[in-house]
Amino acid sequence: MSPSADFPSAGESTRGEDDIIKRIAAILGRGPIPRGERHIGDDAAVLTPFVGQALVSTDVAVLGVHLDGSLFPLEDLGFKAVAAAVSDLAAMGGRPKGAVIAVSSPPGTDLEELHRGIGDAAVITGCPIVGGDLTSSRDVSVAVTVFGECPGKDAVLRSGARPGEKILVTGPLGRSAAGLRRRRAGASLTDELVVAHRRPWPRLAEGIAARGAGASAMMDLSDGLGLDLHRLADASHVGFVLDHVPVAEGATEEEAIGGGEDYELLIVTPNVERLRMIFADRGLRQPIQIGWTVENVTERTLGGEPFQRRGWQHQF
Amino acid sequence: MSPSADFPSAGESTRGEDDIIKRIAAILGRGPIPRGERHIGDDAAVLTPFVGQALVSTDVAVLGVHLDGSLFPLEDLGFKAVAAAVSDLAAMGGRPKGAVIAVSSPPGTDLEELHRGIGDAAVITGCPIVGGDLTSSRDVSVAVTVFGECPGKDAVLRSGARPGEKILVTGPLGRSAAGLRRRRAGASLTDELVVAHRRPWPRLAEGIAARGAGASAMMDLSDGLGLDLHRLADASHVGFVLDHVPVAEGATEEEAIGGGEDYELLIVTPNVERLRMIFADRGLRQPIQIGWTVENVTERTLGGEPFQRRGWQHQF
Repeated sequence: MSPSADFPSAGESTRGEDDIIKRIAAILGRGPIPRGERHIGDDAAVLTPFVGQALVSTDVAVLGVHLDGSLFPLEDLGFKAVAAAVSDLAAMGGRPKGAVIAVSSPPGTDLEELHRGIGDAAVITGCPIVGGDLTSSRDVSVAVTVFGECPGKDAVLRSGARPGEKILVTGPLGRSAAGLRRRRAGASLTDELVVAHRRPWPRLAEGIAARGAGASAMMDLSDGLGLDLHRLADASHVGFVLDHVPVAEGATEEEAIGGGEDYELLIVTPNVERLRMIFADRGLRQPIQIGWTVENVTERTLGGEPFQRRGWQHQF
Repeated sequence: MSPSADFPSAGESTRGEDDIIKRIAAILGRGPIPRGERHIGDDAAVLTPFVGQALVSTDVAVLGVHLDGSLFPLEDLGFKAVAAAVSDLAAMGGRPKGAVIAVSSPPGTDLEELHRGIGDAAVITGCPIVGGDLTSSRDVSVAVTVFGECPGKDAVLRSGARPGEKILVTGPLGRSAAGLRRRRAGASLTDELVVAHRRPWPRLAEGIAARGAGASAMMDLSDGLGLDLHRLADASHVGFVLDHVPVAEGATEEEAIGGGEDYELLIVTPNVERLRMIFADRGLRQPIQIGWTVENVTERTLGGEPFQRRGWQHQF
């Protein structure tokens, strides 16, 4: 669209835009560009062929909706947007190949700070930013589209779980929600749980390991176990019996179940020993078994009590 | 991010959200899904492997910035956002493989109308919508990320033109700007030039033909020849001599040069006969030769006069 600035336009735009785009490109372009690829600088980015299935996912983060700008710096919006999108690749067992970002903002927005967060997440997740678009709007928003590849076995879907399989998570839950609560109560930005909220860590290595280990179904816990496990069970047409939910230190059980944004992986597998062995071989923290799947799709319990749907909801 | 609705969440969201997402999925999912692919319905969409180089581009359209809602229906925002992104694939000689969309909007937005425009553009360009994200914001915005493949030869970059090659465009220019002017003066939405503005047509077949014909450099005219030709010349380190600019019927020369959003392709080639032959073989309208490249990068003229940079600019 015309009144916007693709990064490629950098060379011939107005002086101010030129400067900003150059500085952004310097912030984002911190890694080497793979041979045969071409990132920022043309109508579209050019990537080498994908290995195996190609995965694509998109996520938007809006200031004031996904991040409270009075509690957190703007760079967190960029970091979280990229991390959330990359986590969707982890959830399929994919390996990131790159991302494009579309940033909309009103005049006066600190675009360098925002892109510093984007760039940090790109470096940490090994997902280079290969292109983007800048445009004007009243809201500050970051739309991230990530793409990944699946060498070897196919991607792990939500829908592959069968009755009688084990359900595991890659870590204790509720850290992000607890961090948000603590920040609201005045904790510093460097408080450990606040950092967990600000700097979610996509479980890429765990997702790849689980795919290799023959996991039957998988997803990332972005909206909380109380919603996401139901989603997986719905897609797979199974019920489930949970014996416990691992609550992170400093979090409440409510935060562990309904909190969201933990981005731990939820894994279902017919062969938990193989999963444990592969995680051990790769030096990954052992996943925590929380229950098993059952044939009756309406049987959904935690400690013998009905396990209700709860977590983030959205109204239009 | 949590307070948003990936399409995959459809099944277990609130009733209202569920309904809207189902209706949107019905609007978007009009084509068959290729064997082995999985679109809306999981953490990420799964696509079959890309043939040759993979291309990715992203574009955002914001209501009130890219489209005047008092002059045009909301579906035009969706259509134009997709068409503009697909045109970036055409500009490289790519073939669309799919797109993901991220829509942000305030409560009360007619999301069905917006997605009707998105779906129409997807069908017309043969670029299926394979996933998306819905979120809340004050502005209505559509971020589109398209990906394409390049069977055979590599993608055509902006930077490959050499001195002494011919410069062509795929059609007369200025239709979009003329349509916007006419609409502002009261012309109906079905006026031919107004339709050209509302329903831009990415030159996919032409781009693929030009790549096959050995074009050395290419881009799409999104911001107007007065900016885009300079961009191509800058990237290729060449100058140019134009003998004329083809002005579309009903448009002014100013609109043809500075108007933008025509999405005709700008092609540079060392072998114009081969280009013409391949276009003829495929039943495509013959491209129009407008000039040639020269070695002196500062020599940039139209009819012997300096050809100034002009067209859409953006301020931050």
